[in-house]
Amino acid sequence: LERSIFSSLSPLDHRYYLSYPELFEKIGEYFSEDAYIRYELRVEAALTKVLAKRGICSAQVGEEVGRACSLVTPDEVYKEEEKTKHNIRALVNCIQKNVSEAAKPFVHFSTTSVDIMDTATALRFLEANRDLILPKTAELLGILIKIAKDNQGTLQMGRTHGQHAVPITFGFAMAQYVSRLGGRWEMLKATGENLRGKIAGAVGAYNASSLFMDDPLSFEEEILAELGVKPSPTSTQVVQPEFLTDYIHAVVSAFGVLANLADDLRHLQRSEIAEVREAFDAHQVGSSTMPHKRNPWNFEHVKSMWKEFMPRMATLYLDQISEHQRDLTNSASGRFVPEIVVGYLACVQRLINVLRRIQVDPVNLERNIDASKEMVIAEPLYLLLAYYGHPDAHEAVRQLTLESQKSGKTLRELLPEQESLHEYLQRFTPEQRFILEHPENYIGMSERKTKLVCNEWEEKIKEYSA
Amino acid sequence: LERSIFSSLSPLDHRYYLSYPELFEKIGEYFSEDAYIRYELRVEAALTKVLAKRGICSAQVGEEVGRACSLVTPDEVYKEEEKTKHNIRALVNCIQKNVSEAAKPFVHFSTTSVDIMDTATALRFLEANRDLILPKTAELLGILIKIAKDNQGTLQMGRTHGQHAVPITFGFAMAQYVSRLGGRWEMLKATGENLRGKIAGAVGAYNASSLFMDDPLSFEEEILAELGVKPSPTSTQVVQPEFLTDYIHAVVSAFGVLANLADDLRHLQRSEIAEVREAFDAHQVGSSTMPHKRNPWNFEHVKSMWKEFMPRMATLYLDQISEHQRDLTNSASGRFVPEIVVGYLACVQRLINVLRRIQVDPVNLERNIDASKEMVIAEPLYLLLAYYGHPDAHEAVRQLTLESQKSGKTLRELLPEQESLHEYLQRFTPEQRFILEHPENYIGMSERKTKLVCNEWEEKIKEYSA
Amino acid sequence: LERSIFSSLSPLDHRYYLSYPELFEKIGEYFSEDAYIRYELRVEAALTKVLAKRGICSAQVGEEVGRACSLVTPDEVYKEEEKTKHNIRALVNCIQKNVSEAAKPFVHFSTTSVDIMDTATALRFLEANRDLILPKTAELLGILIKIAKDNQGTLQMGRTHGQHAVPITFGFAMAQYVSRLGGRWEMLKATGENLRGKIAGAVGAYNASSLFMDDPLSFEEEILAELGVKPSPTSTQVVQPEFLTDYIHAVVSAFGVLANLADDLRHLQRSEIAEVREAFDAHQVGSSTMPHKRNPWNFEHVKSMWKEFMPRMATLYLDQISEHQRDLTNSASGRFVPEIVVGYLACVQRLINVLRRIQVDPVNLERNIDASKEMVIAEPLYLLLAYYGHPDAHEAVRQLTLESQKSGKTLRELLPEQESLHEYLQRFTPEQRFILEHPENYIGMSERKTKLVCNEWEEKIKEYSA
Amino acid sequence: LERSIFSSLSPLDHRYYLSYPELFEKIGEYFSEDAYIRYELRVEAALTKVLAKRGICSAQVGEEVGRACSLVTPDEVYKEEEKTKHNIRALVNCIQKNVSEAAKPFVHFSTTSVDIMDTATALRFLEANRDLILPKTAELLGILIKIAKDNQGTLQMGRTHGQHAVPITFGFAMAQYVSRLGGRWEMLKATGENLRGKIAGAVGAYNASSLFMDDPLSFEEEILAELGVKPSPTSTQVVQPEFLTDYIHAVVSAFGVLANLADDLRHLQRSEIAEVREAFDAHQVGSSTMPHKRNPWNFEHVKSMWKEFMPRMATLYLDQISEHQRDLTNSASGRFVPEIVVGYLACVQRLINVLRRIQVDPVNLERNIDASKEMVIAEPLYLLLAYYGHPDAHEAVRQLTLESQKSGKTLRELLPEQESLHEYLQRFTPEQRFILEHPENYIGMSERKTKLVCNEWEEKIKEYSA
Repeated sequence: LERSIFSSLSPLDHRYYLSYPELFEKIGEYFSEDAYIRYELRVEAALTKVLAKRGICSAQVGEEVGRACSLVTPDEVYKEEEKTKHNIRALVNCIQKNVSEAAKPFVHFSTTSVDIMDTATALRFLEANRDLILPKTAELLGILIKIAKDNQGTLQMGRTHGQHAVPITFGFAMAQYVSRLGGRWEMLKATGENLRGKIAGAVGAYNASSLFMDDPLSFEEEILAELGVKPSPTSTQVVQPEFLTDYIHAVVSAFGVLANLADDLRHLQRSEIAEVREAFDAHQVGSSTMPHKRNPWNFEHVKSMWKEFMPRMATLYLDQISEHQRDLTNSASGRFVPEIVVGYLACVQRLINVLRRIQVDPVNLERNIDASKEMVIAEPLYLLLAYYGHPDAHEAVRQLTLESQKSGKTLRELLPEQESLHEYLQRFTPEQRFILEHPENYIGMSERKTKLVCNEWEEKIKEYSA
Repeated sequence: LERSIFSSLSPLDHRYYLSYPELFEKIGEYFSEDAYIRYELRVEAALTKVLAKRGICSAQVGEEVGRACSLVTPDEVYKEEEKTKHNIRALVNCIQKNVSEAAKPFVHFSTTSVDIMDTATALRFLEANRDLILPKTAELLGILIKIAKDNQGTLQMGRTHGQHAVPITFGFAMAQYVSRLGGRWEMLKATGENLRGKIAGAVGAYNASSLFMDDPLSFEEEILAELGVKPSPTSTQVVQPEFLTDYIHAVVSAFGVLANLADDLRHLQRSEIAEVREAFDAHQVGSSTMPHKRNPWNFEHVKSMWKEFMPRMATLYLDQISEHQRDLTNSASGRFVPEIVVGYLACVQRLINVLRRIQVDPVNLERNIDASKEMVIAEPLYLLLAYYGHPDAHEAVRQLTLESQKSGKTLRELLPEQESLHEYLQRFTPEQRFILEHPENYIGMSERKTKLVCNEWEEKIKEYSA
Repeated sequence: LERSIFSSLSPLDHRYYLSYPELFEKIGEYFSEDAYIRYELRVEAALTKVLAKRGICSAQVGEEVGRACSLVTPDEVYKEEEKTKHNIRALVNCIQKNVSEAAKPFVHFSTTSVDIMDTATALRFLEANRDLILPKTAELLGILIKIAKDNQGTLQMGRTHGQHAVPITFGFAMAQYVSRLGGRWEMLKATGENLRGKIAGAVGAYNASSLFMDDPLSFEEEILAELGVKPSPTSTQVVQPEFLTDYIHAVVSAFGVLANLADDLRHLQRSEIAEVREAFDAHQVGSSTMPHKRNPWNFEHVKSMWKEFMPRMATLYLDQISEHQRDLTNSASGRFVPEIVVGYLACVQRLINVLRRIQVDPVNLERNIDASKEMVIAEPLYLLLAYYGHPDAHEAVRQLTLESQKSGKTLRELLPEQESLHEYLQRFTPEQRFILEHPENYIGMSERKTKLVCNEWEEKIKEYSA
Repeated sequence: LERSIFSSLSPLDHRYYLSYPELFEKIGEYFSEDAYIRYELRVEAALTKVLAKRGICSAQVGEEVGRACSLVTPDEVYKEEEKTKHNIRALVNCIQKNVSEAAKPFVHFSTTSVDIMDTATALRFLEANRDLILPKTAELLGILIKIAKDNQGTLQMGRTHGQHAVPITFGFAMAQYVSRLGGRWEMLKATGENLRGKIAGAVGAYNASSLFMDDPLSFEEEILAELGVKPSPTSTQVVQPEFLTDYIHAVVSAFGVLANLADDLRHLQRSEIAEVREAFDAHQVGSSTMPHKRNPWNFEHVKSMWKEFMPRMATLYLDQISEHQRDLTNSASGRFVPEIVVGYLACVQRLINVLRRIQVDPVNLERNIDASKEMVIAEPLYLLLAYYGHPDAHEAVRQLTLESQKSGKTLRELLPEQESLHEYLQRFTPEQRFILEHPENYIGMSERKTKLVCNEWEEKIKEYSA
């Protein structure tokens, strides 16, 4: 069943595959249909392995089934499903074709379809998280840390409401994202490792396994331990949905951090601001007729992907509801959940590529600071006057700023003329005076905090970003 | 670029493709990447055709470009995009390779990329709506009409809050869906035909085309008329987003009607209710060991797909916002929008297949009516007594129902003993008395309304369901 | 039951009420709980009026009940509900207290609770739409039209991707919103007038009314005609949900247009762009210490409200699903739906107030155009060269732009030196040459289109904005 | 500013307030506007207290300000805001009116408005969680535990796809909810305790506080420690949004568990199933004319509230994005977030009230089991035959079930006649034979697991449910 990728309907299966074919091939090892079937086979193999360990079937049967599981292909399973109209029944039939008569009863023995599928689902998310999501997120964190450190002292005008406020450093602005994405990385780790499987039968009460053993709970644990996943605390036919819901919340909220970062950077790339820009290839045509036009299209892309995938969280919440011991209304919707992770990964990769070569423009950063630095002084001046006892510091400074607007003189130029303020001004420490004379240095803890944050996260992700 | 479909990530590109390969091949003619590029080529061809008509280029150039557009393949466009990093630039280059030097300037002449892309997008939805969505929805409507008519007199217990209320007919219950889905069909038609294209240039002000003509609005209209689509009333770089938003609202709200229908039918298939059931193949294995178990899995599937696609409406609302003359943050997200339509179509097809063979169980319908029909009488009795002047009809009947519960006698059995009621009872018309004696016939307009609704919609969709 | 408004939980009931107390008092006439009960009473009155018209009860009874309906208060209904635990039963009891014994049976006669509630709901939305939403939206449209007309020739740099593209006029940019909001105004009108009521009984089959008349459909129509609302084409216990869903889609998508407008204006107010600004009161303190800081907080507020209300559309889609002849799971959620309309109205009012005094800064508009106008020339130059036969116009201009970047000369300065281009340049018309010499006039149809759009909508909303 | 509660627009401020006035009064202590202002005053008081501790102002000033904070009322703050158009400026003015000239400069000293507001927000959620959400959720858990334990042995037919599957106990079904809601309780606890405040100034870089001290990080920590809340790891003008996002995810996903529970119970109350029912007051009128009709309206209400509040999670995700050092577009939307918690609490309270008196119907439970128990036997029989070496157990049993359908004999009746099976049947253990003879006991670990789960959670919530 080979088809041109341009026949695909999902952009993930054509356009975005082609953006990062290598990454998408790796993703396919966890989230393609092919991979899903291989995960199910791994669960079936683990089941028979434990049956053999416990003597419920012979060691030879265990090995035979394990071997058979490695031979089944998606094509034959789908062909079989055309007959059975039941995907796991088809899978079991395909395994059974490759084993002896004696082994056949112990394929899928005592389990229900969902035991296999839900465990396979937990496993693919858990392993994709461990192998791809955490390392890729750590890689991006590493790049953000580098940018933040490189620019820990690069002055930038701080902006609230899109208006110039007081200065910070560009490194400090990036350190916010180190910290926030770092927090999400920890949430991804915690919730990813906490995904759960189940081997509890058709209604979750171990009805079938209870026929053959006294400790079906241990039986379940042993099988899942073979795979490296913990059991759901209780189950109906399905694993408790909250574990996956928590994990996807982690992904979606991490995606939100990426979207915020991308938004910030695309606005900083506005023609009038121009403090950063995406690097362009030497041979890349910007716009055919406007060579200076460099669109922040990668950052726009990240925001756009977030708009596609964020709303899908609602599907997870809807899928928390399953009637009685289970209805099937989470089945089709559940098959789309991996796409959210894929969308996230594609954006992490894009940001890695773009941020590795991001260009910070010191000239424009300074120009933008200069445009407002004379007004910045008002805040520290008012606070210092108040601190040193001026009875109405706020009003005094407000009057000064009005005078400044009228006269065209800066606050700094006006200050020496204000006799009524001299008594307070002389109490200022040298450091305080320095700030008033160089308001672009009114950056508080920007540098120190940047270092603290970067060091903390460098340490935390050390093993992942190696 | 051939790949196994099992390498795909989206279930639409493997599992659900395999469910209805024929339908999905047709869908691919509108919504695959291959199709998108072909739609763009159609827009480019229409552009040069109108340029030639107006004498801006020669007739020969117009034909040359038209021919060239029919030769370009997605593979070469994508290969070219690797160099240009710009999809429409790549497309234009590919067309230009196949034309003479004289024709080259008039490929894509005076337009911006989005003129081509947004018009192509409108066109693919408009044509898919006309060719697939409306006819398929009409086909489903036809089947619902048949079920409703066949069962216009089939008594069913009406249920509110999951509790037995008063009787209706099964046809009447189905007629609700004829009417609601019919209403959505009209909304799909109206909003689908109202999708818009644009040929208005980089910021929507016809800057480029104004250099060469006095009537760029007519120029835009002529090109779009070639394709059968109307222009956006105004544009920025993009078509006004509300036209597509309205259309997808129509799709999503039609999907909601399907989900409600599916929910009703799966509940009617509950073991305890069992009034309908999905037909099973002679050879189909239900559950391996419980041959009587027939899961309403197709109805569950429809509900599940709705849970996947309904939340995506939020993406359309998010994409209404584009800064100034346009940012690109609707680009990636916009590429996923067709999936909503595909999900809807797959569910329409599934319901067509299942409902064509739905089995209605008259025995269980009657059993369920019988269980409550003696209590049904209370409502008409109370109303009739009140109507004929009983000063406290409600209390009188309430007392009767209490006596019924105590004595085990039905209301009907108790009535003749109530001397205080005789004076009113004798005023009842024969028809009113008939209802009290046969409460299962207390179905109001169920039959008449069913007929009215079915006839109305049979007429309305006539040309589509032929 | 009087309480301090600061005890309220919803910001709509304290903070935003206080923002526009007059508007909110008017809104309360449709959407407060008090108003809901009064709407229900109107439906009950209309019912008995038609019963009297048809001779089912006497004219005197009809009048008696009508009068009684005007006397009932929410307080007594809620007090009664404590006993009945049923809101409409409580309402009916309260009406019955005020009528004679003879009239009592004809209060609520033959209807079910939801007949009253769903009709009241349709009516309050329909009337609020007619009296508030349409006129307020028209008022905002009127203000946008004025801004657009006043600025139809005010040059502005067009921006795509936040990057300078080619010029437009500020009026043209605003005309987009006239057109888009105008389109939504029409959608609000169409869907608002199309809201539906029902008088079809407990399961929608007219079971009760059929006992007393042959034409329950006409009976339903007559009652609804008294109120000015059309009947649902079919009903279960509830009106078909799609009518309200369509209306709220209209509101939510109109809200999206407001959000886009607000976003544009707050970005145009950025310190570095500064093309518009919210007017400030003479006495208004901006920021205590930075008097030049004027935050676009009203525009930010509108965006924020949209973020609150847009996601609630999902509730409408969820409420499309009601099992069989109805479950109650749309009841509580339905009570919150009016809030979406209130949020929209509050934002329309805010934009009316702010836009009435918006300040457009011609100096900054010109400064921003000047910054890029020399590069703007490249697009028309390239197109004109191609049009007049240059075999490789694009490459020729690209070389020129590179030379411009190297030499520091503008394209306009370089042009006369290019001998190879002379033959083409001399073919340019005077108008085409004018553009190259004054690239800030490369604005295409900006002015003409602005006028066309404004005139169209001025005409359309004439009666509403008077 | 007193108003009738029936003038309110939000159902939370009229109808649902009246449902649980006592609970809502308590909620108001955290989430009313009044409460919000009081929380802000607590933050202002803590600030000046720490300023005094550090000797930045005198101890007397600290006390003076603390006292003044306790005197301010929402009314005066709102009156003041009419002048300032700035809510925190208004608050500060109101505090300053009540202190000496010497103290005035140290009100709000060195902080920005959002330091106060974001810290107040964290605090109100943190304390409401500790005082209301956790204890109320624990109370509901306690009731679920009691129901589960009381019914740990009450046989119930397990249902998948709404179809009878294999038996469980009703206690086991309820134990699922103990476990799932228990898991959410832990998530609420963890994320609620992890909410964060900030005292980091206008752009989060401690610009102002750095003027007066070397350790602004400790200063921030000390103030927050006074209030019992931890600092955001880094801040812009606002606290990192992910902490609140995680908390509301916990609330929304806990709400999902309630919705699932409510759905299960309302379906179990269907006329045809009737295994549980909501208790009715002696005097409560069910339906006026159908006294046996007991609608599961409380469960329906819970589902409906979930439909209202679940989609609002999207607002939290949208509010993750704030440009640069902050835009204000999370301000209005953030004011609605507490409503999600209120909706959740109202539903917890409702379930507490209803479940405390839930009626379980043993007769109907048994009737429903009996309807399918003869088919249940097929699963264990097939597994046992396979286990004991039957080469084709599945086919053998399938044949038997077909014979059963034809002959009308049960599987149990047919078994002794099957000579070919005797050799395997005699190997069955007594326990295995017991199951085949009493298939209603094929309940696996239902009882044991119920006990385990209930004991675990009883222990975990001990201190909260006391």
